[in-house]
Amino acid sequence: MALRVGVIGGGQLARMMIAPAVELGIDIRVLAESEGMSAQLAASAVGDYKDIETVRAFVKDVDVVTFDHEHVPQEVLRALVADGVAVHPGPDALRFAQDKLDMRARLAELGVPQPDWARAANASELQAFLDDHGGAAVVKTPRGGYDGKGVRVVRSADDAADWFARTAEGDALLVEELVSFRRELAQQIARRPSGQMVAYPVVETVQRDGVCAEVFAPAPGAGDRLAQMAEVIGRQIADGLGVTGMLAVELFETDDERILVNELAMRPHNSGHWSQDGAVTGQFEQHLRAVADLPLGDPSPRAPYSAMVNILGGPADGSFESRFDIAMTEHPDAKIHTYGKAARPGRKVGHINASGDDLDDVVYTARAAAAHFA
Amino acid sequence: MALRVGVIGGGQLARMMIAPAVELGIDIRVLAESEGMSAQLAASAVGDYKDIETVRAFVKDVDVVTFDHEHVPQEVLRALVADGVAVHPGPDALRFAQDKLDMRARLAELGVPQPDWARAANASELQAFLDDHGGAAVVKTPRGGYDGKGVRVVRSADDAADWFARTAEGDALLVEELVSFRRELAQQIARRPSGQMVAYPVVETVQRDGVCAEVFAPAPGAGDRLAQMAEVIGRQIADGLGVTGMLAVELFETDDERILVNELAMRPHNSGHWSQDGAVTGQFEQHLRAVADLPLGDPSPRAPYSAMVNILGGPADGSFESRFDIAMTEHPDAKIHTYGKAARPGRKVGHINASGDDLDDVVYTARAAAAHFA
Repeated sequence: MALRVGVIGGGQLARMMIAPAVELGIDIRVLAESEGMSAQLAASAVGDYKDIETVRAFVKDVDVVTFDHEHVPQEVLRALVADGVAVHPGPDALRFAQDKLDMRARLAELGVPQPDWARAANASELQAFLDDHGGAAVVKTPRGGYDGKGVRVVRSADDAADWFARTAEGDALLVEELVSFRRELAQQIARRPSGQMVAYPVVETVQRDGVCAEVFAPAPGAGDRLAQMAEVIGRQIADGLGVTGMLAVELFETDDERILVNELAMRPHNSGHWSQDGAVTGQFEQHLRAVADLPLGDPSPRAPYSAMVNILGGPADGSFESRFDIAMTEHPDAKIHTYGKAARPGRKVGHINASGDDLDDVVYTARAAAAHFA
Repeated sequence: MALRVGVIGGGQLARMMIAPAVELGIDIRVLAESEGMSAQLAASAVGDYKDIETVRAFVKDVDVVTFDHEHVPQEVLRALVADGVAVHPGPDALRFAQDKLDMRARLAELGVPQPDWARAANASELQAFLDDHGGAAVVKTPRGGYDGKGVRVVRSADDAADWFARTAEGDALLVEELVSFRRELAQQIARRPSGQMVAYPVVETVQRDGVCAEVFAPAPGAGDRLAQMAEVIGRQIADGLGVTGMLAVELFETDDERILVNELAMRPHNSGHWSQDGAVTGQFEQHLRAVADLPLGDPSPRAPYSAMVNILGGPADGSFESRFDIAMTEHPDAKIHTYGKAARPGRKVGHINASGDDLDDVVYTARAAAAHFA
């Protein structure tokens, strides 16, 4: 009998698990938020992932539960675990991806390098942090942020007044040092419930307006020291937080050659899309292996360089498919991935991967092919 | 609106189109022979592909029709074309894959190198061919054969008496020279309705009991002359027969260094499974592009060598999945493809791909991983 993996959430990450699931013979079933989601082909149920009875009904016929996103409430996750359901990553790990204050505190316990940070329950606590850090800082809502939402650079406590007004009694904002970085990196680790881990090469990520735009793998010019440090940090977090499945650790490479942890994601991540075509085992297959507690696949690159360029927004006129002719004609070696989503400014609707021996060539191919879908 | 590709037949070839269809955003729909077929996930209908009304109902909501096999009757294909449906490959091409006598006659017209052959309507015609060819020959039923079925080596006309007894008035058997070959090769070509073609590297195929067992890509030791000749023959057939989609040309490399055409297949083919992981554009993505008349993808290998080893029969005890632990532990770089079919002696239930710089290593990996599923 085929392994049955249930995925909560029907977005593009669930969609991109379908291809490796079919090849491995894993029976993938998706609880989608609505009809017509990206992962529609594998949707076996439609409903609210915050409703425990909806989720209970969905998981009845699966062997393991995993996620397209990190928004399933702790009380739902804990109820499933109490029911005896295999949930990966589990609630004890996911809470650190769900609450950035908890994440910072836990990474501090582990001794992982990260920006200076504090809990700011009110304007005066924020002002004190600003005074200690040259008058500028990053303020984050601990929960619910993504793709640049819930993140703001502030230069006075007033800049966060609206967020404090909405912060419940006993809650707080996260305030972080404004790091001077030369670039952003990401380290991916896969970890099985039984503890086996494998590390992907550290990659460079380029964000625009808080959204991942491009990824270069491996991070160009990253020496052995940098690669090793990123891997050690990634393994330490995966193990220390008990992550199961794919972990992405977003990193700052500072102007003074340190690495600091920025954010965590406990699922396949945009920084790993290159691996679908550029690694022996892509992150979506790896995530399925990891959550099903199967031996992990080889994360080695298939080529010296890979590049991933997101298609943001989608065609301003005409359908996504209407651009196939020009994009495929001009770039027969570009790997086109589409999410089945309607065009909308800034929305992630697909991406292009390219791999080869020459970094400039693969970056050009991925950018030029992606540009045909604008 | 997504391109809608309808596939007639729910076997593993249809199944392996699902992964690239999802990534490209092609809406793939399958007419399966029964419930629980390999391509179940994409099955939108179940029914008899020989029944025109069943097929008409299936194709109503698709933009193009293609196939998992070559058994759809000419009258059904021609009725679809008369209805205005885009059918790829079309009946005028498919007839040469459906009838081996027609194929031999057409290849003779094109001047393609092939074994000596004749139409044998009765025992005396077969005996005459045997007398002219050293007393041995290969007899084939022109229709319905596959995987070694419908093929027999004969040394007297009596050896085919049962087949002649079943041959209808006016029909005949195909008789071919028993070729002395050093190995078998296969050449794949993709061709769009608008005429664009791309060629994959020629590969070596190893058959056991008439069934494809292993494929090495590119064919080890094949020089430029051999590779060029195979490609020229492949392009000549694809163009001359008007094939749309993937064409596989099975070839004999003779002891005296000639190449002769053995068989044709007008669909993705076992000899091309290596390309799923070993080429920039795998044959299943390429077939979808070709039948949808999209620009073809780059068929270049991703690595110097790839090997494909079929999993024939499947586990004698326990499930396919019960072997994942040992196979994945020992071969993290093996790409496992499973067809969702029950184990049965000799049945194709999956395959392993491996790629790398060293031929011996990749062949070892693919064979050793496949052996864990025996």
